[in-house]
Amino acid sequence: MNCPAGKVLVAQGGGPTAVINQSLVGVILAARKEPCVAAVYGALGGVRGIVNEDFVDLTGETLEDLEGVGATTSSALYSTRDKPDAAYCARMLAVMRRHDIRWFFYIGGNDSSDTVRILDEQARAGGYDLRAVHIPKTIDNDLVLNDHCPGFGSAARFVAQAFMGLNLDSHALPGVLIGTVMGRHAGFLTAASILARKYPDEGPHLVYLPERTFSLDGFVADVQRVHREHGRCVVAVAEGIRDETGAPILTRLNTTQERDAHGNRQLSGTGLLGDLLAGIIRKNIKAQRVRADTFGYLQRSFTGVVSDIDSREARAVGEAAVRFALREDRGGSVVIQRLPGADYAVRYDLVELAAVAGKTKTVPDAFINAEGNGVTEAFTRYCRPLVGANLPEPFRLRAPRVPKLHKAANLA
Amino acid sequence: MNCPAGKVLVAQGGGPTAVINQSLVGVILAARKEPCVAAVYGALGGVRGIVNEDFVDLTGETLEDLEGVGATTSSALYSTRDKPDAAYCARMLAVMRRHDIRWFFYIGGNDSSDTVRILDEQARAGGYDLRAVHIPKTIDNDLVLNDHCPGFGSAARFVAQAFMGLNLDSHALPGVLIGTVMGRHAGFLTAASILARKYPDEGPHLVYLPERTFSLDGFVADVQRVHREHGRCVVAVAEGIRDETGAPILTRLNTTQERDAHGNRQLSGTGLLGDLLAGIIRKNIKAQRVRADTFGYLQRSFTGVVSDIDSREARAVGEAAVRFALREDRGGSVVIQRLPGADYAVRYDLVELAAVAGKTKTVPDAFINAEGNGVTEAFTRYCRPLVGANLPEPFRLRAPRVPKLHKAANLA
Repeated sequence: MNCPAGKVLVAQGGGPTAVINQSLVGVILAARKEPCVAAVYGALGGVRGIVNEDFVDLTGETLEDLEGVGATTSSALYSTRDKPDAAYCARMLAVMRRHDIRWFFYIGGNDSSDTVRILDEQARAGGYDLRAVHIPKTIDNDLVLNDHCPGFGSAARFVAQAFMGLNLDSHALPGVLIGTVMGRHAGFLTAASILARKYPDEGPHLVYLPERTFSLDGFVADVQRVHREHGRCVVAVAEGIRDETGAPILTRLNTTQERDAHGNRQLSGTGLLGDLLAGIIRKNIKAQRVRADTFGYLQRSFTGVVSDIDSREARAVGEAAVRFALREDRGGSVVIQRLPGADYAVRYDLVELAAVAGKTKTVPDAFINAEGNGVTEAFTRYCRPLVGANLPEPFRLRAPRVPKLHKAANLA
Repeated sequence: MNCPAGKVLVAQGGGPTAVINQSLVGVILAARKEPCVAAVYGALGGVRGIVNEDFVDLTGETLEDLEGVGATTSSALYSTRDKPDAAYCARMLAVMRRHDIRWFFYIGGNDSSDTVRILDEQARAGGYDLRAVHIPKTIDNDLVLNDHCPGFGSAARFVAQAFMGLNLDSHALPGVLIGTVMGRHAGFLTAASILARKYPDEGPHLVYLPERTFSLDGFVADVQRVHREHGRCVVAVAEGIRDETGAPILTRLNTTQERDAHGNRQLSGTGLLGDLLAGIIRKNIKAQRVRADTFGYLQRSFTGVVSDIDSREARAVGEAAVRFALREDRGGSVVIQRLPGADYAVRYDLVELAAVAGKTKTVPDAFINAEGNGVTEAFTRYCRPLVGANLPEPFRLRAPRVPKLHKAANLA
C-alpha cells in the first residue's frame, strides 16, 4: 500500500432528490475498493451530523442493501438546511481530524459546494491533508459549469408526466388548469413540463419561468387567447415568478389580511400562488373549471418515476469523485459535461470549488420563446435525453366523425 | 346471423381515471367481434355528445391505435359533468333511435349509472329495444355492490407512492408534511396513503377520512404527539373531512374575507385546505418545517403510475359488459366481486341499475382505527392487491453507529 491510510466521510446536503442515494452508493462502492481507505463513514444529517459526530460506518454495508438504498428516493443519510460559516466549518474540521478523515465527499447543491470550498481552504491553512470533493445534486439544475445536474432529470420526468396527465384531463373536462412547479430562480424544471407534448394542441400551452418578468395582464391575455382557441388552457408556472421589480408574484398577490391564515411567505409547501392565479383567471375569464395544482414535494421525492439516464449519472458522479480524490489526489467539484455530437454522451470532470460555489445558472435565453410564455425547440433538444428512456406517450383515437342524422337542437 | 342488427354506442362520463380507456377499448374490441353489431360508435363528451350527435365511428379503428389509447390516461372520448334529467335522457334516446343504437355502454360513476337507469326505463316505456349497461369507474371507489372500482387501484398506487416519497423527504428534512387527497365522502383513496409503509416509524403517521368527525383540537394533539415521538409527522387528509355538524372543514376554516381571493368554495383544485391546516399547526407546534401538498388532479390522470391489476380489470369490465348485453341480452350495472380465498381473484357480475345508481359506498368501520386517525390491517389486506405488482419499496442503511471520539459540544 503506497498511500497513507485514512478514512472516507460522505454526507448529503440540501433538498432530497430521486437519485441522490445513487451518488452515495457510487462513493461507498468506489471508496471501498481503494486499498488506502481504512473505513467509509457516513455523516447523518449533512454538515450538522459532522459537527455532532453522528457517524455511521458504511464499510460493511452489504451490496444488497446498498443497491436497495440506491433505488430509494430522498437522502438515506438524511440532510440539513444548515449553511456553515467559517466557525461552523472549523468545528467540522476538528471532528474530521479527530477521526482521521482524509477524503470528504459532500453531495449537494450550491450551498454545499460553498461549504466544501471553505472546508478545503481551512484544511490547507491548517496544514491538514484533506481531499474534499463536492458532488453535484439539484432538481433545480442550477449549478454552473454543469450541462445538467443529477436529480434534475428524474424531477423533470415527473413534471413532464404530470403535465401529460393534466393536459389529458383538461381535454376530457375543459377549463383552465394551472400547475405550479418548484424553482425560485431557475426555471428548468418548469420548462420540462412540455416534454411529453405530442399533438400540436396539447398543453401546457403557456409556460412561465422566473427568468422573465411575469405580468398579470399579460398572463390573463395569454390565457384568454389560448382558451378561445382550444376551449381549454393548461399553464405551467414556476413558484419563483417575479414582477418587473424582481419581487416574487406570490408576495405581491398575498395581501396583508391573508398573511396570517397562511403563515409565513414561503414559496414552497403551499398552494397559495396557484390559488391566487386561479382566482385572477376566474375574475377575468368565463371558463367552466379553473383549478390549480401545486406539485410541491411530490416532484423531488416521488418514488417510481426515475430517469434511467439520471440514475446512472448520479451513480457515476459519486464514482468519479472517488477517482479524482483517491487516484488523482485532487479536490474540487465534479461536473457533468455533454460531449458534442448527435448522440447523447457525457464526461465527468473536476473543476475548482470556487468556480461553482454560490453561483446560480438560469435558463439561457435561447431556451425561452420571444413572448416569454413558452420554451423553444432548443430546450426540448437539450432536455429530452435527460428524462430518460420510455417516457409515456399519449395516443388519440383517429375514428372518423359520424354524419349527423337527427338535427336536434344542440346544447351550447 | 340470428340476431337483429344494430349499432353499439359507448361513452365516458365524470372524472377521468388512469385506466378508463381500457374499459373503452374492452367494449370496442368485444363489440366488434359480435356478428349482429353493424357499427361501434363513440359519443364525444359523454351524454352531452349524444344529445349533440357528436359521434365518431370506432368500427375501423386499428388495434395498434386502440392499444395505445388503452394505455393513455384520462378519457379518450372526453367527458362531461352534465347530470341528465328525464327530459335530457329523452333527447338522448331520440338521437339513439335515429341512429339505430341498440346497445349503449356508459363508463362512469354514480351519476352515470343513474343516467343509464333513466334511459333504460324510458326505452322500455317507449317500446324501444335497447340494452343499456353501466360500466363502473371511479377513483373514489364508492360504488355499492362492487368490491372495488376500476380506476381506484391506479390512483391508490399513485397516492401510496407519493406518500412513500413524502415520508422519505420528511425523514431527510424533518418537520410536519400534510398531503391532501381527493375524496368528498369516501376516504378509500386517502387510506391508500399507508400502503408503501415498511418500517414501523414510517409515515403517514396520521390518516383522516371523511367517514370520521375531524376535530381541530384532536388534530393538533395528534400531530404534537407524533412530532414529539418521531421528530417529524406526515399526515394524509381527505379533502372532504367534516366537523361534528357534517360541514366540510374547508368551509369552516375558510372565513369570509378569504373567500374572494380564492374564488368559490370548491374542495378540489385548490391548495387551501392543506394551507389552512398547516397554518394551524404552525401556530400550535414548534416544528422546523410545516408544509402542505395537495395532490389535486395529478392523482387521477398521472401517466406512468398504473396498477397492472387495475388496468386488466378495467379492460375486463368493458368486455364483460358486451358479453352481458349481446350474448345474454341483459342490461344493468357491471360489478366486480372478490372471490373468497387466500389468493386475489375476482368475478364480474351484472346487477340491477337501481341497486347501484345514486348510492355511495364509504370506508367500512372495520378499516378505520378506534382513534379515527388511521387505518387497520384489514384495510391493508383489502387494498394491497388492488395497487398491483412491484410497488416500490423503501430501503434503509443498516450501518452501525461510530463511537464518538471528539466530545465536541453538540448543536441542538
